[in-house]
Amino acid sequence: MKENLYQYILEIADNCLILGQRLGELCGHGPNLETDIACTNISLDLLGQVRSYYQYAAQVMEDGRTEDDIAFMRMEREYRNTLLVEQPNTDFAFIISRQFMFDLYHYLFLKELQHSRDLSLSAIASKSIKEVSYHLRFSSDWMKRLGDGTEESQRRMQAAINTLWPYFEELFEISDAGKALIKEGIAVDTKGLKKDYLNSAREYLQEANLIMPEVEHFMKGGKSGVHSEHMGYILADLQYMQRAYPNMNW
Amino acid sequence: MKENLYQYILEIADNCLILGQRLGELCGHGPNLETDIACTNISLDLLGQVRSYYQYAAQVMEDGRTEDDIAFMRMEREYRNTLLVEQPNTDFAFIISRQFMFDLYHYLFLKELQHSRDLSLSAIASKSIKEVSYHLRFSSDWMKRLGDGTEESQRRMQAAINTLWPYFEELFEISDAGKALIKEGIAVDTKGLKKDYLNSAREYLQEANLIMPEVEHFMKGGKSGVHSEHMGYILADLQYMQRAYPNMNW
Repeated sequence: MKENLYQYILEIADNCLILGQRLGELCGHGPNLETDIACTNISLDLLGQVRSYYQYAAQVMEDGRTEDDIAFMRMEREYRNTLLVEQPNTDFAFIISRQFMFDLYHYLFLKELQHSRDLSLSAIASKSIKEVSYHLRFSSDWMKRLGDGTEESQRRMQAAINTLWPYFEELFEISDAGKALIKEGIAVDTKGLKKDYLNSAREYLQEANLIMPEVEHFMKGGKSGVHSEHMGYILADLQYMQRAYPNMNW
Repeated sequence: MKENLYQYILEIADNCLILGQRLGELCGHGPNLETDIACTNISLDLLGQVRSYYQYAAQVMEDGRTEDDIAFMRMEREYRNTLLVEQPNTDFAFIISRQFMFDLYHYLFLKELQHSRDLSLSAIASKSIKEVSYHLRFSSDWMKRLGDGTEESQRRMQAAINTLWPYFEELFEISDAGKALIKEGIAVDTKGLKKDYLNSAREYLQEANLIMPEVEHFMKGGKSGVHSEHMGYILADLQYMQRAYPNMNW
């Protein structure tokens, strides 16, 4: 039970950590000042949520590990984020498409997590959903501006969506820990959410003059710790300070 | 004396380590198979030289540190490489220009280091110079092929040389450790080498249909440990395994 809850918290929080790290790489590199600050703010929101989750995870385990240990001292196979969030910042179309695909999921997911019987998780969900509804507004607005923009921006958005779409399904995959906790009313049963996600995504994409790709084979593995080639480089950057100065503090 | 010799060995070897790491990033990404293998081989040559230098440095210090400690466990400020070798693999023109600028220096430097009164250094120099003369042949051939190639390749080569040229002078900077060891006949007095370098580089560039840039302000700092923004990312990748698994062995 304790181990399942710990794993489940990681599944939620690691998506936020790795996407936050990816967005953080952009700090100072956005296409204009407003967007730069927006992406960095979203990164900070996600990392703030990560702290709440990891603090709770540390409390669940009761073995002295801290939020920093959980964030920085795990090996690659122990991270439970989906492959989507580790995909690189190829161009702004990729950044926005990745963000939109995650935000829509994140919003629908937190809406349900608010009703979790685990009061810590439902409290974090209620607090986070306000931020995430803003993230979704930001990314879906940009989907429309660029998808329904110039020929060039439309072409690049469609290319990004085509490349990233095979990664959406893993968001809804249910792990063994998830299965056990759904029975207890703690975890979200994402099976039902997938239909909502597809319906909603289709509307957003249509409005953005983009075609939802038809994909037969989906990419997965991250949730069970089998990551893409990008993950090692992300962790090398992310973990460097704690690895170089173990147990450092501000 | 011991400390000076240690620092001087690092000044030589760290250039090879960081350039070797930069070239290693290209493994599998070269423009064609032959060039890919050539760049990877040059990387391996440089890392082989690094091992000889660091083994000797560890022996000089006699305090139990190993070649791996020296390679992987230092902090950024303790690396003594020049800023040139940490510049990124922007495109193949940058890779070749950086390599040519370093190889020409490296060749002239090792030719002198062979006469060092320190027998270990002179032995490493004599062994390495054969490899380095091949490196110089490879990079200067590509300078000519691309500089004297198409309009596009010429433009890109000139852009690379213009960007990198401000970094050449640091190669000839003499540190305090260097100064002390020149007096003992151990270190190379690079003051005399700079004229040879400029004369030779001018000939190569002319033959490659490229213009030697006129630069008033040169970039330096790496040799005294003050690196560019790229260095932290290089070290995060380079050191990750030893940082994550301290004292690991194959």
